[in-house]
Amino acid sequence: MPAKSSKTPRRATHSLEQILSTAIEILDREGSKGLTLRRLAGELGGGLGSIYWYVDGKDEMLSLACDALVGRALVAAETHTSDGPALETDDPVIVEAIGDLRRTAMALFDQTQIHPWLAPQLHAQGAATPNSLRYWERLGRPLARIGLTPTQQFNGSTALSGYVTGVAAEMSAQDLHADPHRPKAERLDEIVSQWLASDPDEFSWLHSMADEFRRHDDDEQFAAGLDLLLGGLVRQALARSTDRD
Amino acid sequence: MPAKSSKTPRRATHSLEQILSTAIEILDREGSKGLTLRRLAGELGGGLGSIYWYVDGKDEMLSLACDALVGRALVAAETHTSDGPALETDDPVIVEAIGDLRRTAMALFDQTQIHPWLAPQLHAQGAATPNSLRYWERLGRPLARIGLTPTQQFNGSTALSGYVTGVAAEMSAQDLHADPHRPKAERLDEIVSQWLASDPDEFSWLHSMADEFRRHDDDEQFAAGLDLLLGGLVRQALARSTDRD
Repeated sequence: MPAKSSKTPRRATHSLEQILSTAIEILDREGSKGLTLRRLAGELGGGLGSIYWYVDGKDEMLSLACDALVGRALVAAETHTSDGPALETDDPVIVEAIGDLRRTAMALFDQTQIHPWLAPQLHAQGAATPNSLRYWERLGRPLARIGLTPTQQFNGSTALSGYVTGVAAEMSAQDLHADPHRPKAERLDEIVSQWLASDPDEFSWLHSMADEFRRHDDDEQFAAGLDLLLGGLVRQALARSTDRD
Repeated sequence: MPAKSSKTPRRATHSLEQILSTAIEILDREGSKGLTLRRLAGELGGGLGSIYWYVDGKDEMLSLACDALVGRALVAAETHTSDGPALETDDPVIVEAIGDLRRTAMALFDQTQIHPWLAPQLHAQGAATPNSLRYWERLGRPLARIGLTPTQQFNGSTALSGYVTGVAAEMSAQDLHADPHRPKAERLDEIVSQWLASDPDEFSWLHSMADEFRRHDDDEQFAAGLDLLLGGLVRQALARSTDRD
């Protein structure tokens, strides 16, 4: 058990960046339950000392790992290529702002798909780290640019952020519980056959969705829901500009 | 450790309903970590036998408790009074369907607010229980009624369901981590003062949101985001009916 004094100056043999990238590798491989600081020290090939130089414990390490990945999403958002559906306006301010929001949301979603432990973890810890605040800022500014009221901006930003991590966490949960050695098509087929065993009258709609579910793509499904939200925001912006005329 | 044979017929001294309502009480008080079958048996005033008569272990008990609350939401949805904003159409089919979706979503959200362990748990387990399937069916049917394509119906239903549990889980996480003895206004104030300590140039938008955040109401925030999604669905329905004309 490391003493409290482990945080007193002592030479750190690994940089924080090295520690974080190894921690993320372990998390990707083993999930958040599999990360222990002892295992991390083992894989880094050093003692616990240089880890405790940077963090107080596992929770802080998890929080820094999340922050690092949100940081990667913020960088990726700058150059993310993601074309949404045509908007019902060609107002350049709105088109630019909605494209910006779409890139930001898709870039974080991409990270949650690469790192299935990320979305559940982001849920648990909230927007407390520097990059989470930057991410929120990046969702908020475009909403101000398109002229929404402060309340609309606030609610719009939290709806976007809740949607991204919410849907991502749901998709990750499915993947985390699944046997990784079984092909996805086979797993989807098994779920569908459970539906088809349900009462076809009580679950007539679900039965009608069997083919959709079999061939659905998580990325497209995520983007389609995101575009519903963005469409709602465009309507708000257009209604506001009519109010002002 | 109960033997596998504990599931062979033996008199159950408590009904499943009694067991579930006591399990939900424990979960409400102590969270999902606080629920053990031994504690549950203690509070029921009986042995573990009648619990193992119904379930194989804690995971199944949690799953049944979730299912019971989704069931309560489905009942409440029938009579939920929730008025959304005016829609951009008075087509009675669309108005009725959107009202239906809103009641269903708000009724489940209400349950997640009463039972803060529910949303994270629903995330973790997916739509595997009978009432979760009924809930999904109840989100899907109105989307078929307003004439969306099967793919739009599928994506719309998962966007709604992901939004509800996603935003609810985020709000619950904030509450679960908070000291329940501190007034909410005081907690919000503390979060805002952390923002205000951040760089006012880099975080200019966040700074502008301080008052919004201080006076925000979780229910209104949830409903506002839901209405963005519903507004997006109305647009899709209207575009489809134009396509058909």
